[in-house]
Amino acid sequence: MNQDDLSKLLAGVKTGTVEINDALEQLKNFTVKDLGYATIDNHRELRTGYPEVIYGQGKTPEQVAGIVQYMLTRHNNILATRVTPDMVESVRKVCPEAEYNHTARTIAIRMKEIPLPPTYIAVITAGTSDLPVAEEAAVTAEIFGNRVERIVDVGVAGIHRLYNRLDVIRQARVNIVVAGMEGALPSIVGGLVDKPVIAVPTSVGYGANFGGLSALLGMLTSCASGTSVVNIDNGFGAGFLASMINRL
Amino acid sequence: MNQDDLSKLLAGVKTGTVEINDALEQLKNFTVKDLGYATIDNHRELRTGYPEVIYGQGKTPEQVAGIVQYMLTRHNNILATRVTPDMVESVRKVCPEAEYNHTARTIAIRMKEIPLPPTYIAVITAGTSDLPVAEEAAVTAEIFGNRVERIVDVGVAGIHRLYNRLDVIRQARVNIVVAGMEGALPSIVGGLVDKPVIAVPTSVGYGANFGGLSALLGMLTSCASGTSVVNIDNGFGAGFLASMINRL
Amino acid sequence: MNQDDLSKLLAGVKTGTVEINDALEQLKNFTVKDLGYATIDNHRELRTGYPEVIYGQGKTPEQVAGIVQYMLTRHNNILATRVTPDMVESVRKVCPEAEYNHTARTIAIRMKEIPLPPTYIAVITAGTSDLPVAEEAAVTAEIFGNRVERIVDVGVAGIHRLYNRLDVIRQARVNIVVAGMEGALPSIVGGLVDKPVIAVPTSVGYGANFGGLSALLGMLTSCASGTSVVNIDNGFGAGFLASMINRL
Amino acid sequence: MNQDDLSKLLAGVKTGTVEINDALEQLKNFTVKDLGYATIDNHRELRTGYPEVIYGQGKTPEQVAGIVQYMLTRHNNILATRVTPDMVESVRKVCPEAEYNHTARTIAIRMKEIPLPPTYIAVITAGTSDLPVAEEAAVTAEIFGNRVERIVDVGVAGIHRLYNRLDVIRQARVNIVVAGMEGALPSIVGGLVDKPVIAVPTSVGYGANFGGLSALLGMLTSCASGTSVVNIDNGFGAGFLASMINRL
Amino acid sequence: MNQDDLSKLLAGVKTGTVEINDALEQLKNFTVKDLGYATIDNHRELRTGYPEVIYGQGKTPEQVAGIVQYMLTRHNNILATRVTPDMVESVRKVCPEAEYNHTARTIAIRMKEIPLPPTYIAVITAGTSDLPVAEEAAVTAEIFGNRVERIVDVGVAGIHRLYNRLDVIRQARVNIVVAGMEGALPSIVGGLVDKPVIAVPTSVGYGANFGGLSALLGMLTSCASGTSVVNIDNGFGAGFLASMINRL
Amino acid sequence: MNQDDLSKLLAGVKTGTVEINDALEQLKNFTVKDLGYATIDNHRELRTGYPEVIYGQGKTPEQVAGIVQYMLTRHNNILATRVTPDMVESVRKVCPEAEYNHTARTIAIRMKEIPLPPTYIAVITAGTSDLPVAEEAAVTAEIFGNRVERIVDVGVAGIHRLYNRLDVIRQARVNIVVAGMEGALPSIVGGLVDKPVIAVPTSVGYGANFGGLSALLGMLTSCASGTSVVNIDNGFGAGFLASMINRL
Amino acid sequence: MNQDDLSKLLAGVKTGTVEINDALEQLKNFTVKDLGYATIDNHRELRTGYPEVIYGQGKTPEQVAGIVQYMLTRHNNILATRVTPDMVESVRKVCPEAEYNHTARTIAIRMKEIPLPPTYIAVITAGTSDLPVAEEAAVTAEIFGNRVERIVDVGVAGIHRLYNRLDVIRQARVNIVVAGMEGALPSIVGGLVDKPVIAVPTSVGYGANFGGLSALLGMLTSCASGTSVVNIDNGFGAGFLASMINRL
Amino acid sequence: MNQDDLSKLLAGVKTGTVEINDALEQLKNFTVKDLGYATIDNHRELRTGYPEVIYGQGKTPEQVAGIVQYMLTRHNNILATRVTPDMVESVRKVCPEAEYNHTARTIAIRMKEIPLPPTYIAVITAGTSDLPVAEEAAVTAEIFGNRVERIVDVGVAGIHRLYNRLDVIRQARVNIVVAGMEGALPSIVGGLVDKPVIAVPTSVGYGANFGGLSALLGMLTSCASGTSVVNIDNGFGAGFLASMINRL
Repeated sequence: MNQDDLSKLLAGVKTGTVEINDALEQLKNFTVKDLGYATIDNHRELRTGYPEVIYGQGKTPEQVAGIVQYMLTRHNNILATRVTPDMVESVRKVCPEAEYNHTARTIAIRMKEIPLPPTYIAVITAGTSDLPVAEEAAVTAEIFGNRVERIVDVGVAGIHRLYNRLDVIRQARVNIVVAGMEGALPSIVGGLVDKPVIAVPTSVGYGANFGGLSALLGMLTSCASGTSVVNIDNGFGAGFLASMINRL
Repeated sequence: MNQDDLSKLLAGVKTGTVEINDALEQLKNFTVKDLGYATIDNHRELRTGYPEVIYGQGKTPEQVAGIVQYMLTRHNNILATRVTPDMVESVRKVCPEAEYNHTARTIAIRMKEIPLPPTYIAVITAGTSDLPVAEEAAVTAEIFGNRVERIVDVGVAGIHRLYNRLDVIRQARVNIVVAGMEGALPSIVGGLVDKPVIAVPTSVGYGANFGGLSALLGMLTSCASGTSVVNIDNGFGAGFLASMINRL
Repeated sequence: MNQDDLSKLLAGVKTGTVEINDALEQLKNFTVKDLGYATIDNHRELRTGYPEVIYGQGKTPEQVAGIVQYMLTRHNNILATRVTPDMVESVRKVCPEAEYNHTARTIAIRMKEIPLPPTYIAVITAGTSDLPVAEEAAVTAEIFGNRVERIVDVGVAGIHRLYNRLDVIRQARVNIVVAGMEGALPSIVGGLVDKPVIAVPTSVGYGANFGGLSALLGMLTSCASGTSVVNIDNGFGAGFLASMINRL
Repeated sequence: MNQDDLSKLLAGVKTGTVEINDALEQLKNFTVKDLGYATIDNHRELRTGYPEVIYGQGKTPEQVAGIVQYMLTRHNNILATRVTPDMVESVRKVCPEAEYNHTARTIAIRMKEIPLPPTYIAVITAGTSDLPVAEEAAVTAEIFGNRVERIVDVGVAGIHRLYNRLDVIRQARVNIVVAGMEGALPSIVGGLVDKPVIAVPTSVGYGANFGGLSALLGMLTSCASGTSVVNIDNGFGAGFLASMINRL
Repeated sequence: MNQDDLSKLLAGVKTGTVEINDALEQLKNFTVKDLGYATIDNHRELRTGYPEVIYGQGKTPEQVAGIVQYMLTRHNNILATRVTPDMVESVRKVCPEAEYNHTARTIAIRMKEIPLPPTYIAVITAGTSDLPVAEEAAVTAEIFGNRVERIVDVGVAGIHRLYNRLDVIRQARVNIVVAGMEGALPSIVGGLVDKPVIAVPTSVGYGANFGGLSALLGMLTSCASGTSVVNIDNGFGAGFLASMINRL
Repeated sequence: MNQDDLSKLLAGVKTGTVEINDALEQLKNFTVKDLGYATIDNHRELRTGYPEVIYGQGKTPEQVAGIVQYMLTRHNNILATRVTPDMVESVRKVCPEAEYNHTARTIAIRMKEIPLPPTYIAVITAGTSDLPVAEEAAVTAEIFGNRVERIVDVGVAGIHRLYNRLDVIRQARVNIVVAGMEGALPSIVGGLVDKPVIAVPTSVGYGANFGGLSALLGMLTSCASGTSVVNIDNGFGAGFLASMINRL
Repeated sequence: MNQDDLSKLLAGVKTGTVEINDALEQLKNFTVKDLGYATIDNHRELRTGYPEVIYGQGKTPEQVAGIVQYMLTRHNNILATRVTPDMVESVRKVCPEAEYNHTARTIAIRMKEIPLPPTYIAVITAGTSDLPVAEEAAVTAEIFGNRVERIVDVGVAGIHRLYNRLDVIRQARVNIVVAGMEGALPSIVGGLVDKPVIAVPTSVGYGANFGGLSALLGMLTSCASGTSVVNIDNGFGAGFLASMINRL
Repeated sequence: MNQDDLSKLLAGVKTGTVEINDALEQLKNFTVKDLGYATIDNHRELRTGYPEVIYGQGKTPEQVAGIVQYMLTRHNNILATRVTPDMVESVRKVCPEAEYNHTARTIAIRMKEIPLPPTYIAVITAGTSDLPVAEEAAVTAEIFGNRVERIVDVGVAGIHRLYNRLDVIRQARVNIVVAGMEGALPSIVGGLVDKPVIAVPTSVGYGANFGGLSALLGMLTSCASGTSVVNIDNGFGAGFLASMINRL
C-alpha cells in the first residue's frame, strides 16, 4: 500500500465519500483472501496482471487444487511449481486444461496472453542432470512473458561446447546458468558477457557436494562480476528474477 | 524434592512417625514408575495437575500404549506427540476415546477440565507447510489450559497479510511464531509487540535451508528483542513454554 | 502504529482538524530520528518509558557518543552494550555520570527510577568464565526495572553446588542460565523448576565447542520443557526477555 | 573474442593484409598485460569504457601502486577496493589526486565523465555496522555511472523506519539491501517492490551468525521473489551488478 | 607380531630348524585368512580367546554367513553387529543355534564359557529411544565376559530418576552412558562417580541434533573429568572398551 | 582446439581452400554432438582413442541408452558408471553384449583392444564395504588400458594384513587407496611407498563420518607426502587419474 | 551425597544428636566454598586426597591466585592448567614454590606424596607440534600419582618409528595418543595393543583440519576397538582419565 | 623395510654373521634419529638421495635450527617450509648459506645437484594473492629436481588470459593449479589437457569461502577427469607429488 493509495483513501474519508469504518475494512480486506490453510496475496497480481504462483511442496493435493480453484475466479495465468503427479490429478478435476511439464514439475494454466519484449533470456545448463531445475526456470520465464533460449549440457569439463553457443549467450539480455557439482559454469559465463548472470546451484552430484553446498559456495565466491545467486535448486526464483530484469 | 519436603521427612523421622528404612524407600520410589522400557516421572504431575506427556518418536506402538495405560490410572489429562497412525490404533485399544489430531500428529486424552486464564496465546504461521508444527504448538497449549488464536500463512513475502491481524497479535500475552526458510517472521513480530515471542524454526523448505538450519540461525540472530528460540520443529516445546508464561 | 492510532488520524482528517499533508507527514516522521549513520526508533520508548539501548559493537566511539547525546534529550534511562574503553571515554565527555561495568562491558545512564515488581529474576552461571555474559544479562534486567539474584559457578561437573541454591532458583519467576562448553546446566535447571528458563550459550571453552556451537546445540535439543534459547553470548537478549516476562 | 572479431581476422588473413604469424600473435597479446605478479585484462575495458578495478586484499602496497600506474596509461576511471591506508599512500605517490573513501575502503581515480541514466539505485542498510559494505556498493555504483540513493539503519527490529522511505525504495530501478545478523531485510523489501533486489549479507554480528552465514542462508532461502544474493560483505559485486541492471 | 615372536623365528632360522623361505611364508600367512571379499585377522583372537566380531553393515547376507562359517572352524565365540533379518536367516543356515537380539541388532554364537571378573559394568540409558545402542553395548560386554547392570530412561529432564539408582552406578567399575539430544547425562554421571565414564552419543532426536552431532559435541566438551567418547551410535565400541577396562 | 589446429585453419583460409563461413562452421561443429538432452564431447576421444564415458546418475534409462547408441557409431570402447539395473536393461536393447559389473555399478562395451603398459596399478581397499567404489576404480583403469592388482580388506585396525602384501604395493607404479571411516589407510601406504597415492574417501560408515566427511578430511590432512585426494566415492576419477599416470 | 551419608544423617536426626536445622545446613554447606567469582567443590578431594585442579583459561590472574590461596589451606596437591605467564606471576606471590611447566602451560604445587602403582601410562605424540597437549596430559597423570613414559614424534608418515618403541607401548596399562592433522595414530596404536587407548585430537595443522575437526572425526570413526576420544587439545582430560584407569 | 632387507638379515643370522641381539638392535635403530623433541626419519632419504624436509609451523626457531644442524651431517639437500623470519635467523647461525624465499616462506640448502628430467611442471596461479602457495609448490618441485614453468594470475574471470598460455600448459607433464575463492581454474585446465592436474585450494578470499572451504569443495567436485586435490594451502604437498609424477 503506497503513498498514493493512502492519499486517495484519506481524501475519500475527508470528502465523506468513504466512511471511517469502510476505510478500515478496506485496508484490512482488499489485498488478501483467507482459505483457512492459506492466505492468498491478491495485491500484486491485481495491479500487474502477473501470473499467480503456487509452491506445491508441503501442501496436500487438495490444498493445491483448492487454491487453483479460487485463483481461476480471477482470470489470471497460474503457475504451480514442485508439483507431484497426485497434485496434477487433483488440479485437473477443477481445471482439465492444466498443462503438466514432467521435467520441470510444473502445472501451467494460461488464461490470457502476455505481450513479449523483443529481448530474450538464455537458460544454460551444465549437465543433463540439471535439466529439471533449468526447465523450471525456463517455464517460469515463459509464463511470465519472455522468450527463452535453452542451451544444454555445456559444463566446464568440455568448455568448447560452450564457445560454440557464444553468440546466443552474448545476445541474451540476461543469462540463467544452472550447474551442480563445482558450480564453475557461471564464473565462465560471467567472464564472457556484459549482462547480468543469475547462477542457480543444483543439488545434483555426489560426495563432497553436500546437497548443493559446493556449487552454492563456488557461485557465491565467483570472481566474475555481474553474477548473483539464488537458492539451491530454485529454478523458479531464477526465472522470476530474469523475467523482472528482461521486462524492465 | 524441595527443602520443605526434606524438612517434613526429617521431622517425621525425628518424631518416630517415619522409620529410617521407610524414609529411604520413600525417597527412592514415590517419584518414578519403572515400566522396563521407560521410567515415568510422576513427580511434577502429581503436584501440579498438569497433563502427562509422551514423546512418541522412537517408541513402538506397544510401548506408547503401555505408558498410556499406566497413566490412565492417575486420572490426569494425557498428551502424546509425534504419533503415527499405528500408535493411535494401539492406544485406542486401551482408551477408545483418545482424540487424534492428524495435522498435529498428537493424541489427546482429556480426563478433567483445567480452568483457563483470561489472556490468550497467538500461534502465527508463516506458510501452509508450517501448519503441522504450529498445530502441535496450539494443541499443546490448549490441553495445558490456554485459549489459542491461530493466524495462518502470513509470511514476510506479503507482509501486509500480517498487518491485517495486528490487533490479535498485539493483544496476545505471548506469541508463538512458526516459520521455515529464512525464518524472518519472528523478527517482524518481535519488532511490533511488547510481549514475549517464542520462535519455532521449521525444517520446511529446500536448498540452503539445510533441514531448518537457515531458519534457526535467522531466529537466533534476530535483531528484535524479546525473542527466544526452541528446537527446529519443536511445536510442543513452544506450546509448553507459552502455557507456562501465559499462566504465570 | 495500531488500529486505534489509525482511527484517530482518520477521524482528525474527516473533521478537518488534520490536513491531509500533515497526516502524511505525521505518519512519516514522528517515530524516528535520522542521525545520518543511525535511524533511531523513538516509538516504543516514548510509549513505555523503557530504557533506550545502544549496541556498541561495530560502531565508532564517536557514533556511540553521538547517539547517547541525542538520547539524553529524551530523559530516559540509557543502556549501551558491548562497549570498549574507548567508547566509555567518548560517552563520558557528553555525560560524565555514565556508569561503566567492566565485566559486563556496559554503560548505564539512569535518568529516572523504574518501580520494581515483587518477583525477581535468577541469573545462574555455569563457570567463572561465563561471568561477562551473565553480568550483561543481570545489568540489563536491572536497568529495565527488575530485582536480580546472582548464582555463580554451579556447573554440572559438581551438581550439588546447584542443589545448595535450589530454593533461590525455585522461587524466581524466571531463570536465566548461562553456560558454555556442553551447555547442560539449563537442562538440569529446567527439570527442577516450574518456571520459564532462558538459556544463554556462551562461546567460552576450547576444542569442539566451536565458538559456542556445542552449548547452543545442547540447549536447543534439551529434553527439559519450558526452556528456550537466545543467541550465543547474548546476555542482553536474555535480560530483556526475562524482564518482559517478570513484568508481565 | 566474439564471432565478429574472428570474422575480421580471418578476412584479413585471406586478403593477405594480415600475416598468419601476426594473426597468431595478435590473438595471444592484445587482450592482456603481464606485470609479473598480475596479468591485467584489457579486453572488456577497452571496448566498454568501464572503469578498471583492482581488488586490494592479499596484494602488497607496491603491487597495487604498480597496477594503478599501468592502468593510468589507458585513461580510464580506476577503482580499487579493500584497500589499506598503506596502499593509499603508495598509490598517491603515482597519482596524487586519488580519492580515498575511509568507510568504503576504496580508492577512486576519475579520468573521464560517464553519462548517467535517468533511473537510480537505492542502497538500503539494516544497521550502522553494515555501512562499510553498503558504502563500497554505493561508491562502486557511482564510479560505474549511476545515481545512488542511500537509506541507512532501517532494519526489521523497527520496521516502520523502512516504511517512511517506501517511496524512494519503490521508485528505484534496482535495490541493494545490505544486512547482517538474520538478514531478514531483503525479504521485506522484496515483498514490497516490483524491481530486482540484490541482497548483500554482511559478517556483522556475533554468536550464531558465524561470520555472516546466518545472513547468507536467510537471504538465500528468502520467500520473496525477485531477490538474488552476492557473497558475504561483497559490496563491490552488488554495486557492479546493480549498475549493469540500471544501465541495461 | 611382537619381539618374542621375532626372536623365536630368528632362533629357528639360526639353528636351521626353520628354512628362510618358510620363515618368510610364515610371516606372511599365519595371521590372516583371505576370503576374497574379506581378509580375516586371526592374530589377536588366537592369542586371547576373545570373541571374533563381524560388522554387518555394508556386507551382503552371503558375505556375513561366509565369514561366520569360516570362524566356526576356529571354535571361538562369535559376535555380529548391525545385522539385518536377512543376515540372521543366512547365518542360521550355517549355524542354527545363533542367537538373534532384535533390539541390539546382534547375532551371538557362544562356543565356550569366558570366566567373569567380580566387578560389573553399568549401562545407563537416557531415553527409551536410545535402547538399541545401549543394548548393543550390553550384549557386547556380556559376550566378552562381563556382568552388566542396565539402568533405563533416567535422562536429565527428571534427574531424580538417576539418583534413585546411584548406588548401582557408584559401585560399577566402569559406566557406559548412552544419550541422544543434548547428551548431558554423561556430564552428570561423571560428576557423581570416581570411575571411568564412556559416553555414547546417539542419533536419536530431531531438529538441531543433526544426526547425533549435538549429543557428540555436548559429550566432548563435557566439564566432568574422567569421561571419554566413542562414535555416534557406537554401542559395540563402548561395550568393547568397557570390557577391556573391567577385565584389566 | 590448440595452436596447430588454428594455424592450419588460418592457412586454409589464406590459400582459399577454406571459405570463411566454412571455417566458422567448422570451428562450431566438429567437436560436439547435440542430442537435445546431452551435448557429447567428441574432441578428446577422436584424437586419443580413449573410451567414452557416461555418468549414469540423474539420467533416465532412455537417455543413457540413447547416448550409448550414438557412441556405438564411433567404434570406441564405452564405459557407463553409476548405472542402475533399469539402465542395463535399456542399454542391452541397443547393445546386447554390454557387460554389467554389479558390484562396480558399471556397464562396459569393448569395441577394440588397448595395448597395456608393462607397469600396473594397485587398488587397495580398507574394508569389505568399500568394495563398490574400489571396483569402480579398477574397472575404469582396466577399460582405459591398464593392468590392475586388487588388495582387499587391509584396513588399519589390523595393519599386518597390509604388510603381507607390501611387495605388490611397492612395485605398483601408482596406488589407489579406498577407505571410509577415519580414512587412515592412505597415510600408511603413502609412508611406505615412493610412488603417487590416490586416496578415495568413501561414504561407508556411521555416526560421525557424516557421509564420508571424516575420511575426506583425514585424507586431505594426511601427513604422508605424495598423496592426493579425489571426491568421496569417486572410484571413476581415481581410476582415470591412475591410468593417466600409469600411461605417462 | 550417597545413600550411606543419608542414612547416617537420618539416624543422627532420629536419635536427636543432630538438629533438623543443623542437618539442613550441613546438607547445604559442607561440600562447597563460595569465593564470589567461583564456587569450589570440596567434596571429592576431601574424600580421595586427589589434587585440586584449576582451569585457567577465561579467568583473571587475580582469580587464579585467589583460588590457589584458598586451596593451599586444604593441604592437597594443586594443578592449574592453561595458565599464562601473568597467572604464574600472580600465583607465585601467594606460593613461591609453584612449579611452572612452560610447554604444558601448567602450574603444579606438590604438598604431599601420592604412592605410585606398579604399572605405567604411555603418552605417545604424533608430531613435535603436538607436544604442549601431550605434556599437559603427562604432567596431569604424574601429579595424580602415575609413572609416565613419553614417546615423541612417531606419526604415521614414518610408521617404523612407532614400531621401534612397540615394547614400551605394549607394556603400558593405558596409552594416551596425541595427534593433529588426520589423527590416524590412535587407530594404528589401537590395532597393536590389548589395552585402552585414549585419543587426543589436537588443533595443530592447517587447511582442512579446521581447528582439530579432521583429527577429531578421524579418531571418532576409528576402526580400531578399545579407543575413545576426549575433546580437542584436552591433554588434562586424557591424563585424568588415564590416571583413573591406571589406578583402578 | 622391504622383503629383500628381511631376507638378507635372516640370511646373515642363519650363517652366523649376524647375532640375534644385533639383528634385533639393527631392526630397531638404523632408520631413525631421536632428538628429544623430534624423531627424524633417515630411511627414505638415505636410499633415494631426496632432500630432507622440515615443516616449520608449530616448532620453535631453536628446534628448526637443531634439526637442520643434524641434517647437515648427512650431506643432503634440505628444505624447510612455513618458516618465519625468526627461524631464518636461527638457521643461518648454523648454516649461513641457507636461501630464504620470502614469498614462499621457505629455506633451501643445496648440498648437491640433482639431475633434471627433460619434462617440466607447470605451476598455474589464479590470482596474485595465491602466489605464496604457488611459490611454495614451485620451490619444492625445484629442489626435488624438476624444471618449473610459472603462469601467474590467469583466473576464470578473464579466461582468455589462460588460453594465451595454452601451449605451455599442454606441454607440461603435470600441472599444478593454485586457486582460492570458487576454485574453478583446475576444472578448466583439467578439461584442456591430457595430463594429471594437481589442484591446490587456497584460503585466499573473503565471505563464503570459509578459509578455503569453497575452493576445496569446488575442486573435489570438479567435473573434469584427471584432477586430484591436496590440502588447503598445501603448496609443498603439490610440489612433492608433481615431482614424483614428473620423475616417474
